[in-house]
Amino acid sequence: MRDDILELIEQSRYADARNELIKLNAVDIAQVLEEVHQQNVLIMFRILPKEIAATAFSYMSYDQQRYIIESITDKEIEIIIDELFLDDTIDFLEEMPANVVKKVLKNTDDKTRKLINQFLNYPEDSAGSIMTIEYVDLKREMTVRQAIDHIKKTGIDKETINTCYVMDQSRKLEGVISIRKLILSDDDVLIGDIMDKDVIYINTSDDQEKIAMLFKKYDFISMPVVDKERRLVGIITVDDVVDIIDQENTEDFQRMAAMQPSEEEYLKTSVLELAKNRIPWLLILMISATFTGNIIRKYEEALQSVVILASFIPMLMDTGGNAGAQSSTLVIRGIALGEIKLNDLGKILWKEFRVSVIVGLILAIVNFLRIYFLEKVAFNISIVVSISIFATVILAKIVGGSLPIIAKKLKLDPAIMASPLITTIVDAVALMIYFAAATSILGL
Amino acid sequence: MRDDILELIEQSRYADARNELIKLNAVDIAQVLEEVHQQNVLIMFRILPKEIAATAFSYMSYDQQRYIIESITDKEIEIIIDELFLDDTIDFLEEMPANVVKKVLKNTDDKTRKLINQFLNYPEDSAGSIMTIEYVDLKREMTVRQAIDHIKKTGIDKETINTCYVMDQSRKLEGVISIRKLILSDDDVLIGDIMDKDVIYINTSDDQEKIAMLFKKYDFISMPVVDKERRLVGIITVDDVVDIIDQENTEDFQRMAAMQPSEEEYLKTSVLELAKNRIPWLLILMISATFTGNIIRKYEEALQSVVILASFIPMLMDTGGNAGAQSSTLVIRGIALGEIKLNDLGKILWKEFRVSVIVGLILAIVNFLRIYFLEKVAFNISIVVSISIFATVILAKIVGGSLPIIAKKLKLDPAIMASPLITTIVDAVALMIYFAAATSILGL
Repeated sequence: MRDDILELIEQSRYADARNELIKLNAVDIAQVLEEVHQQNVLIMFRILPKEIAATAFSYMSYDQQRYIIESITDKEIEIIIDELFLDDTIDFLEEMPANVVKKVLKNTDDKTRKLINQFLNYPEDSAGSIMTIEYVDLKREMTVRQAIDHIKKTGIDKETINTCYVMDQSRKLEGVISIRKLILSDDDVLIGDIMDKDVIYINTSDDQEKIAMLFKKYDFISMPVVDKERRLVGIITVDDVVDIIDQENTEDFQRMAAMQPSEEEYLKTSVLELAKNRIPWLLILMISATFTGNIIRKYEEALQSVVILASFIPMLMDTGGNAGAQSSTLVIRGIALGEIKLNDLGKILWKEFRVSVIVGLILAIVNFLRIYFLEKVAFNISIVVSISIFATVILAKIVGGSLPIIAKKLKLDPAIMASPLITTIVDAVALMIYFAAATSILGL
Repeated sequence: MRDDILELIEQSRYADARNELIKLNAVDIAQVLEEVHQQNVLIMFRILPKEIAATAFSYMSYDQQRYIIESITDKEIEIIIDELFLDDTIDFLEEMPANVVKKVLKNTDDKTRKLINQFLNYPEDSAGSIMTIEYVDLKREMTVRQAIDHIKKTGIDKETINTCYVMDQSRKLEGVISIRKLILSDDDVLIGDIMDKDVIYINTSDDQEKIAMLFKKYDFISMPVVDKERRLVGIITVDDVVDIIDQENTEDFQRMAAMQPSEEEYLKTSVLELAKNRIPWLLILMISATFTGNIIRKYEEALQSVVILASFIPMLMDTGGNAGAQSSTLVIRGIALGEIKLNDLGKILWKEFRVSVIVGLILAIVNFLRIYFLEKVAFNISIVVSISIFATVILAKIVGGSLPIIAKKLKLDPAIMASPLITTIVDAVALMIYFAAATSILGL
């Protein structure tokens, strides 16, 4: 299907291509145009019906959007912006260079320009910057029939009609009603009598993390956004929430791997940008490792007399780091999903302690069997290594389980208390335990 | 509000509590009942209107659901199951012990019991196990007016009426139409003429990862599920997809921290279960570290003559591990989001190589300045350590960037190629580089 269309376009059979293209979902139209020669993109974009062109535009890559805006006339820009939902306009303007933004703003009417400027001013990732204004507004005095007539008249330009919002004269939010309830109710019933008054709403300043939590908790497909006076100013729809969830997770993955979070796709991020995001934490962690170096230097003599001790350092450090990272990952994730609260610290410590005793014992026993019987390491050294593993696992899991909660209490992002930082801390702890055990048991 | 209701219940003013409770969202009702004494849960559950009770039931914790099912009569069970959407019934039955499942199945009619058994038999995480059957079905010969009448008659029991599905006599899916389009169209238009024929659908056997990808790509709020003959068998709604996305991400977080993935909440997972999920990878990684131990033992003499070399081992290993984990995390995440494809391996290697040269150079220079000027380490040893850092970062980033793709090519989960495994591999590489540099430069 899509290959056929590409062929039609290449043969310059644009009208035929158009007729096939409009049968597709706008997402797929955008994807087809992504694969077409630039000169043909413009031709095809122009002969598509304007509402389809606008929807497809909102699904295009930023590069393609930019190319189109830079190539089309002022009049065409006006039509596209007019057809776009405001949240899609904001999304794309946020990624465009200043000259493109200027060209767009120049070609929108006063009201829209004011709105765009207002939305661009909301803090990034706040409800204000995510919401859109194309919602259905009803009054409580309307009958169901009047409400449905109102929707018929205005619904075409709304992002969703599945939930309608009931406001008073001063635009204060009074209730919500689903299209389902409207359709299933009798024509003469008043909206005020059947609307849901227990409205769960978002404030313009709410962070996207909180928004995602609310959507997940209530299984909504859209939610109203209100200002400080509880006046309705916009709505957020679930498709944006899905993007938010992905973005929040990506940020956590990046922070947990000691990087500055970035919203850009890996393959589209420049080498310099990637390096810039990675260097700070690597430097901090590298310099922190001075500490472990100093511990080893302190026990230089012990090492010199029993050099084999050095050969277990990597295993001990890695095991401690991994054990701690397991605990911290579960706690970080639990906090992110709202399953773990700040006052659960006691429960977590007790749980991690019990888990770590089991895990530590098994690792210590397996290690002892392996190095004493298979590698023929001396008995007392095998004992030193195994005791160190046991104690390291316990400490690693307690450190790993508690630091994310402590970070959250200090209003830091728990995700920074992940593998890299935990590993650096646990390394030092593991070495201290190891050398303490070695000097006392081996009498060094 | 909620505290008021709790007080009413404690004062045994059940009717008053009920009147307040029904004003709330079902999610909040479930939460209030979670905080109430067990004897009162049953009382409140029984005096709630049955459709509200059933919806609230679907949001309760598994423990609460189990308690209720074990306590209420057979007749009451029948009513609850009758009110529940099939996907919610399946969700909760999957978590119940055999005796509860038996009690529920005993009290459902033949048709529902057959359906439940069929749904419980779909592979876990497949579309079949997630979908529900309460959708609106239309025929292409219907007029818009007939369709809306049909919805009015049957819509009350449907999970969503926002998208309606058009089928032929043999239940083959022919098109979809949104409630919005129905409302905005004239009464006498035929459904067949306005429905969307480019239907994007899911197969019963499709995995939840694929389902989430489709929802994200098209911004749908529901999608049809068809069998091998393209007959409509169910629908999946976006609220389930939000749960899927969280679950898939949690699995990735757990795998990337060297754990067996588990769907259970941390605080609700038993100590033994937690230990069981953590031990296998810790054991595997601990034993793999034998390899690094052997490398150190091979260079025992070098270490004995220049003991200070040992003190840089932790820093070198950690830096390599962190650098590799950064790369692998970005690639794993890119694969999960569909941004990185299998044939991008070349691009990734080239990108990681350039990034690693920049990162490696900066780390090596900072390290040299620090240990030579601040810690007064000998010049040639400072050079050995810095060269090792540079080479380790490059190799770590290439290993970290390519292994997730290679895992994917081998049909393994890319998420296992995360920090722990990369660290173990990079440790060995780092030590080999370090000792090679040391022996040649220091002439050991």
